[in-house]
Amino acid sequence: MNFSLSLRQAWARADSMLCVGLDPDPERIPAALGRSPEAIFTFCRDIVDATAACVCAFKPQIAYFSAVRAERELERLIEHIHVQHPGIPVILDAKRGDIGSTAERYAVEAFERYGADAVTINPYMGFDSVEPWLAWEGRGVILLCRTSNPGGSDLQALNVGGEALYERVARLAAGPWNASGQIGLVLGATFPAELARVRAIAGNLPMLVPGIGAQGGDVAATVAAGLADDGWGMVINSSRAILYADPGARFAQAAAQAAERTRDEIRAARTAAWTTRAG
Amino acid sequence: MNFSLSLRQAWARADSMLCVGLDPDPERIPAALGRSPEAIFTFCRDIVDATAACVCAFKPQIAYFSAVRAERELERLIEHIHVQHPGIPVILDAKRGDIGSTAERYAVEAFERYGADAVTINPYMGFDSVEPWLAWEGRGVILLCRTSNPGGSDLQALNVGGEALYERVARLAAGPWNASGQIGLVLGATFPAELARVRAIAGNLPMLVPGIGAQGGDVAATVAAGLADDGWGMVINSSRAILYADPGARFAQAAAQAAERTRDEIRAARTAAWTTRAG
Repeated sequence: MNFSLSLRQAWARADSMLCVGLDPDPERIPAALGRSPEAIFTFCRDIVDATAACVCAFKPQIAYFSAVRAERELERLIEHIHVQHPGIPVILDAKRGDIGSTAERYAVEAFERYGADAVTINPYMGFDSVEPWLAWEGRGVILLCRTSNPGGSDLQALNVGGEALYERVARLAAGPWNASGQIGLVLGATFPAELARVRAIAGNLPMLVPGIGAQGGDVAATVAAGLADDGWGMVINSSRAILYADPGARFAQAAAQAAERTRDEIRAARTAAWTTRAG
Repeated sequence: MNFSLSLRQAWARADSMLCVGLDPDPERIPAALGRSPEAIFTFCRDIVDATAACVCAFKPQIAYFSAVRAERELERLIEHIHVQHPGIPVILDAKRGDIGSTAERYAVEAFERYGADAVTINPYMGFDSVEPWLAWEGRGVILLCRTSNPGGSDLQALNVGGEALYERVARLAAGPWNASGQIGLVLGATFPAELARVRAIAGNLPMLVPGIGAQGGDVAATVAAGLADDGWGMVINSSRAILYADPGARFAQAAAQAAERTRDEIRAARTAAWTTRAG
């Protein structure tokens, strides 16, 4: 299992840089399904099956499962994706950050228990908190860099010797920390200028980009800023706008339509950005 | 339930600033117990019962439970502490870091599902990632500041406008972010000079201090650097040196003895530091 390779193949096969985020909020899933862990599984499975043709990746957010004792359902969901939709990588959004044997335990959780192809982690504790994950050869390790929230600026925008802290993270992540080629970065769509600066620093590193849709990021500006020189490079996440496109029994069809629209919007932005660069 | 008050009472009642970290490594618990989630519960429960008289807090590390599907056992362990040893606060070491409704889900996990009195979190995403936790009135929210690992310096030691990044975190955490009085900081015992600088910035804020024992932090230097003006202020964690003091059937008695020794060492350092300051 090689995340970087799977992702490149998924971009090309689906002609899509859309990732559907699986954040099942018990208050927002259709009431007819109920509120149980099993309801959460059913909801996510139906979303997955309805949107799989449109995506380059799925990104379950672990907090939505662990808050309601749905660990077993998260295991089943990821297994369902791997079995029913082979070739679509699963990014476990966990934002873990720890060192030594504790980091190793978190990696066992993400990569062995859940079978994730990649995981998000937090760089605040430095390379010591990145290195243990790299022992799982080929798995992706995606570091928070410039997050989509306004308060992300509290620390990430601070000037550290002539560059912002997030630029330093990108420089370390793309350089000395990435000898094995497993690293990616999280960049918010809400800050396209910063996204472009990080793309200049980080070469073709895969970028996970939240913040379109509910959070207000503009798709065209995001793609223009972040498209890699190989024509891909971005995993653009949408969660709520797809999951809750319809509050009732038609949720899966509505999710498929919302995913198709978003994929097409990203496709059009990619063609425009590519044409501009070529010209 | 008020973490800050419980902690002050626990310091005074036990005359102890020792915290026992519950990091049950399946490879290191006595072989006779087995390797199952139930064995992990039994091991931790016996450690808790053997060391409760010596501690101001317990700190389970969630990764050791989630890697082996022992969530239910972690729930039972925290419930056991609260029922059998009332008044000893439980700090869930989870180092979570996320925003908005995801942060809220993590808070439900930590405070409602597990019933933790406090939790560790990562400040990289800024105040947006702290604020959702504060809605659980009285619970403690302990931010990573200057961690005990050498690689912690990769980002935390960077100069941001004349101070280190970890000093900026301490200034924000002790000031504008702490209107509700729920915040604490994580400071590694391996950097006593930095610990002293943060104590000067942060007043009497509670500090969770890992890094003595296996990681090499010196108890006397740590206490001298971090003791608060109210005579307490520190939750000094030891995990492996206590949990694995004896590899066999005597593990609980050996843990009790190791905890007593460490508590006494911290007590002596506290008396010495207090005398020096008074003089």
